[in-house]
Amino acid sequence: MSAASLVDPPAARRARLSPDERRAQLIALGVAALAEHPLGELDIEQLAAQAGVSRALLFHYFGSKQGYLREIVKTARDSMLLGTEPRAELEPLDRLRDTLERTVAFVRGHGGTFHSLVRGPASGSPEIRAVVEQARVLQTERVVALFVERDIPVSPRLRIALRAWLAFVEQALVDAALGSELPSTEIVTLLEDALRGITERVEPEAARELFGR
Amino acid sequence: MSAASLVDPPAARRARLSPDERRAQLIALGVAALAEHPLGELDIEQLAAQAGVSRALLFHYFGSKQGYLREIVKTARDSMLLGTEPRAELEPLDRLRDTLERTVAFVRGHGGTFHSLVRGPASGSPEIRAVVEQARVLQTERVVALFVERDIPVSPRLRIALRAWLAFVEQALVDAALGSELPSTEIVTLLEDALRGITERVEPEAARELFGR
Repeated sequence: MSAASLVDPPAARRARLSPDERRAQLIALGVAALAEHPLGELDIEQLAAQAGVSRALLFHYFGSKQGYLREIVKTARDSMLLGTEPRAELEPLDRLRDTLERTVAFVRGHGGTFHSLVRGPASGSPEIRAVVEQARVLQTERVVALFVERDIPVSPRLRIALRAWLAFVEQALVDAALGSELPSTEIVTLLEDALRGITERVEPEAARELFGR
Repeated sequence: MSAASLVDPPAARRARLSPDERRAQLIALGVAALAEHPLGELDIEQLAAQAGVSRALLFHYFGSKQGYLREIVKTARDSMLLGTEPRAELEPLDRLRDTLERTVAFVRGHGGTFHSLVRGPASGSPEIRAVVEQARVLQTERVVALFVERDIPVSPRLRIALRAWLAFVEQALVDAALGSELPSTEIVTLLEDALRGITERVEPEAARELFGR
């Protein structure tokens, strides 16, 4: 809704937009649609019509349907990454809590977009899957950084566990933030608890150094 | 390889199979192909040719391409579920370890099939996604049963955590069992440790009752 309301269709049809503006408008319309529909069900014809351009012109801008979808996914992903960017000025544990709070808030505020991002792109091309996979790599690095900054060694098995904790987080967000009424603070605590508990069992020494006793 | 070698193409072409046998043969060929290719890249024409039947006959048996793919995924899923079926005669913690050992062995022995199952079906129809989702529901019940059998209450937040631990397991299996040389016993221990650590932090009382101190 939010992005769509920025590009009122009749007004858009009347406006003379530069190619860059038109491209940005088409992406914004796609991101707004992604909040309501899985990636595989986006109606390209209708998105072109909404912007008042032909399908051919849309393809001219993005090369192909997959090219257009990739830009939509990239933009939605970046808005999620930006909205959950860790605050570097906070101490690691406060930063973790703050990042998780904003993640749960993002998911509850943009449920359709989150679901399309984490569960939809497998229906797209390998390039589209790679766009979301990059976000997971970056998010893994954000967690790894909590340890590295404190000079806590991250063993290969801890790294595997931290990446897998992110899969835990995605699933818990789908089930708890989208699929239940559990208060947001309790979800944040659940995600934090899981990270701490996993680390305590997988690398007790690293857990003591990061979380204390 | 294994399933394909059961249905030597020239022999199959000569054989007069009953409709049920032909159907089973086509599914077996599809399951074998799933070990080598993601679901979205299965070549239906080629599978029909391998069985020595026309594409039209294949569609007659399964109704549609999605219908055929669904049967392939269902059969692959059931072979995974069967290979990792918990041994009811074991005590909960021994049963958990034994199930995880056979899970890691299955994944290492059938890496392509496992990857196609857990990462591929999102590219299929909602019906195909539901086939794999059913396996996750069943696997969640297997973990929940460890607690229930001992009369340990499973709160909504513990249930969410147990389902999310399964997502942790899938990701760790992709990264560690398929993507690393980590010994299988260490992977099993990692998965066990994660379950214990998560439970200890999310529901300490339930953890003490199941895992002891």
